[in-house]
Amino acid sequence: MKSDIEIARSIELTKIKQIAREYGIPVEEISNYGRYIAKVPETLIDEKKVKKSNLILVTAITPTKAGIGKTTVSIGLALGLNKIGKKAFCALREPSLGPCFGMKGGAAGGGYAQVLPMDKINLHFTGDFHAITSAHNMITALLDNYMYQNKDNGFAMKEVLWNRVLDVNDRGLRYIVTGLGGKTNGITRESSFDITPASEIMAILCLAKDEDDLRRRIENILLGFTIDNKPFTVKDLGVAGAITVLLKDALSPNLVQTTEHTPAFVHGGPFANIAHGCNSVLATKLAMTFGDYVVTEAGFGADLGAEKFYNIKCRKAGLQPKLTVIVATAQGLKMHGGVDVDKIKEPNMEGLKEGVKNLDKHIDNLQSFGQTVVVAFNRYANDTDEELDFVRRHCEEIGVGFAINNAFLEGGAGAVDLANLVVDTIEHNPSQPLTFTYDETDSVEEKVTKIACGLYGAKQVLFGPAARKKIQMIKDLGYTHFPVCIAKTQYSFSTDPKLYGVASGFNFAVRDIVINAGAEMLVVVAGEMMRMPGLPKEPQALHIDIVNGEIEGLS
Amino acid sequence: MKSDIEIARSIELTKIKQIAREYGIPVEEISNYGRYIAKVPETLIDEKKVKKSNLILVTAITPTKAGIGKTTVSIGLALGLNKIGKKAFCALREPSLGPCFGMKGGAAGGGYAQVLPMDKINLHFTGDFHAITSAHNMITALLDNYMYQNKDNGFAMKEVLWNRVLDVNDRGLRYIVTGLGGKTNGITRESSFDITPASEIMAILCLAKDEDDLRRRIENILLGFTIDNKPFTVKDLGVAGAITVLLKDALSPNLVQTTEHTPAFVHGGPFANIAHGCNSVLATKLAMTFGDYVVTEAGFGADLGAEKFYNIKCRKAGLQPKLTVIVATAQGLKMHGGVDVDKIKEPNMEGLKEGVKNLDKHIDNLQSFGQTVVVAFNRYANDTDEELDFVRRHCEEIGVGFAINNAFLEGGAGAVDLANLVVDTIEHNPSQPLTFTYDETDSVEEKVTKIACGLYGAKQVLFGPAARKKIQMIKDLGYTHFPVCIAKTQYSFSTDPKLYGVASGFNFAVRDIVINAGAEMLVVVAGEMMRMPGLPKEPQALHIDIVNGEIEGLS
Repeated sequence: MKSDIEIARSIELTKIKQIAREYGIPVEEISNYGRYIAKVPETLIDEKKVKKSNLILVTAITPTKAGIGKTTVSIGLALGLNKIGKKAFCALREPSLGPCFGMKGGAAGGGYAQVLPMDKINLHFTGDFHAITSAHNMITALLDNYMYQNKDNGFAMKEVLWNRVLDVNDRGLRYIVTGLGGKTNGITRESSFDITPASEIMAILCLAKDEDDLRRRIENILLGFTIDNKPFTVKDLGVAGAITVLLKDALSPNLVQTTEHTPAFVHGGPFANIAHGCNSVLATKLAMTFGDYVVTEAGFGADLGAEKFYNIKCRKAGLQPKLTVIVATAQGLKMHGGVDVDKIKEPNMEGLKEGVKNLDKHIDNLQSFGQTVVVAFNRYANDTDEELDFVRRHCEEIGVGFAINNAFLEGGAGAVDLANLVVDTIEHNPSQPLTFTYDETDSVEEKVTKIACGLYGAKQVLFGPAARKKIQMIKDLGYTHFPVCIAKTQYSFSTDPKLYGVASGFNFAVRDIVINAGAEMLVVVAGEMMRMPGLPKEPQALHIDIVNGEIEGLS
Repeated sequence: MKSDIEIARSIELTKIKQIAREYGIPVEEISNYGRYIAKVPETLIDEKKVKKSNLILVTAITPTKAGIGKTTVSIGLALGLNKIGKKAFCALREPSLGPCFGMKGGAAGGGYAQVLPMDKINLHFTGDFHAITSAHNMITALLDNYMYQNKDNGFAMKEVLWNRVLDVNDRGLRYIVTGLGGKTNGITRESSFDITPASEIMAILCLAKDEDDLRRRIENILLGFTIDNKPFTVKDLGVAGAITVLLKDALSPNLVQTTEHTPAFVHGGPFANIAHGCNSVLATKLAMTFGDYVVTEAGFGADLGAEKFYNIKCRKAGLQPKLTVIVATAQGLKMHGGVDVDKIKEPNMEGLKEGVKNLDKHIDNLQSFGQTVVVAFNRYANDTDEELDFVRRHCEEIGVGFAINNAFLEGGAGAVDLANLVVDTIEHNPSQPLTFTYDETDSVEEKVTKIACGLYGAKQVLFGPAARKKIQMIKDLGYTHFPVCIAKTQYSFSTDPKLYGVASGFNFAVRDIVINAGAEMLVVVAGEMMRMPGLPKEPQALHIDIVNGEIEGLS
């Protein structure tokens, strides 16, 4: 089997304008970034067409070290849909350089189900993440400067809530002190860097309806509180215009192609553990404007990505997914069934039978939104027919559609069964209109409790002192109506990353709540969440290189 | 008079591929970034054509608060050359977001002598600066991680010489402590951020001959010393390949157009006070491959930019400029003659006569390199004929060509006299082959002394304790043969920014020397140099906005 990047290189790409033309995107409106990438203006969105398009969410069981291949299935499904004659688009997130050079690798699919050019997508792409990094850090510099320049006029901040970001895994930046070395170096204060996908600007870019809405949200960003306890926003700083200018190009979705030359929008990239985990609303709606079927994904397991996709993204953007596909793998299920990571390639029916409870719990949760669910079994080389048949029979028993995805090896041809299942299900048994887990009018405590006890299986939610203080602050500021965005480990329903399978009866401890007044959501931090990842002992960067003029080591 | 951005908007741009075609650049080889910007592969450089092309350096008198307009003259001269039928290119630096949102504004020329699209050039452009920022900070994260992961194996650094960069004016990042908050947050250490144009990676990108040379230089970057006093480089870290991958696209020069649709390469952007101050070697050579005349500039006054252009860039790249144009303004000369900034718009012949000594000193210095020099008098609205005639006569007296530039108001038509002077001088009295200020075999002390006493007018050079220690280190490591890159204030020949005009008999104090083993130069820090600027009380960001769909406030 060739590596992802070898496969990517072996495919002769079609000029992106030709793909745009074939799918009805007006080519005179788009801007090339090289031959194979283009920015498509968000102003081409047609809400009437959006309403008629079929949106499909791809989510997954709880991730494990075994990997799941959710992006590969998402791309594979779109390829399969095209194979059976449907006009299908993908809408996906952009990869972050941090994980790409760290442990996880890139995020452009795999095998024969990739978005291309994968090297450019995994590296700087069209610079959206860099624009977000710039915009975020420009606000910080302007804020610190405002404090510094006005300190003799009696202006001071009691509390600063805004930090800095970089798109790199750098644990040394988690907790820093800035402004040292004398008074001309500004105000000395404790601070930190998050990774760029955790920036509120990333969430804003992904949730903004248009440029005006982007600007409005930037104005509303809460930077902290002045010494007389007044909220201080970007509007107060007077630089919302300048920050919007920095993000103007980044707001337009990026069009690329799949391994089979079908179109894909890849735009925005918040992580699903520390942020809301979906590609931009604009990319989804642009795809729906030009495609009859749009396959989109939400990060990590369904507890994180899918929940936020429905309760935050769909609620705010008025989207109604016709179907949810949940991806499962035999190896992942076995890990949830207690099988050690070293043994998951061996057959183990006991483990599989136990592990399937993780899948069932997610399906129950997804159905609670009124979603019709089908299972995509992402086939790996070592999977046995017995394992596969077991999962198939299990799905039949619980009345959920089942299909095998083999797009990694076969491209769209390996996802034709899945595509037929998806089309058939959408035609005969589509999802109901979304039932949200909580109402906007619920209190913050109610919202978190409905998610943690209702979906995760917690016994109760415990709010720590910092969280309680923030809840009062949220009330005082009138932000209670915002959706909540849970930041917790992706490896468990609980806050304990070691609790595989199905956790229940646990306490769900909320440590802090981060107010995203611009993104209009409340980030509820449960457990020790890292908003800046670290690098492993052997980072992927050691394997990335140029060999005979070709980039190696990206995946 | 319209603002720069209004003029920029009023011009209907030509598609960049059409401009490429007109100037013989093979369009199938170039990559568009939107309709009006393209990356041109550096592999198109033809050294035979480079040898035949006429390279013209534009430099300036010592800058003052009055401004000089060096970039405007550079672009204007290229426009003028095109106007008189010559095939002329510009090769310029990319602007930095820091000054653009801070005090200085953008750097894409002005009036009717701009490079376009000026908004994109001044903002993220093709992402080169962001790629440099990423590459620099990725090395830091990998280095800190290496220390952290190997601390129990007895590995430790005695001294870390590598910090981080961001393309923003942020004084709070000048001196920081990182890795706080517990042992999983890495190694606690003092550190700092420089602005991206001060990154060694920026210098490397601007001096690299090709991709292999880029990689070789990245490998050689000296990150610090291990506890057993051994130098530790990027090669030792094992990530030169990954860093080269991050810079692969950034290495290709960017093609844009002027206000009169002539081609300009805009690529790389080190500042001339804290770095070597010239656009990339590759951009200059690409321009020389396709243009008979190439106008390039070097930052700030001739003491900084031009000296480094000859002694570093031309020496290393084998370039031989045919002519040097020095830009002077009546207002700037008056400030050098002791006239207060509030009064420089009024006629003042006394001040002008005194101030012209600054021009003379620079001309002497430029001639010491064997350069033929002509003066471009950059005309401002308030300049009187008497002032202008005085400078013209003065140039006649000292035997130096003189022409007025009025390209700001008139575009190429306002630079025809200058263009004719330039062509005539190159035909009849071109520069001699470069005589460098120092030999590579000179000691570090000799190199610095030859520049400071020979060009600046210093009485003697005083090396502080840190500098002396570094000189020994440089000897031990075998880096003595590198050129020196003086980091000092741009506002004076001396290290005192208040000493206008011609300084002489001063002590030149060298505080520190930064070893750039990858860029292959020694950055000699004289005086209190800021490698990270701060923002003013009223930053330009307050005036940047989108009004009726148009970006305002860029200049």
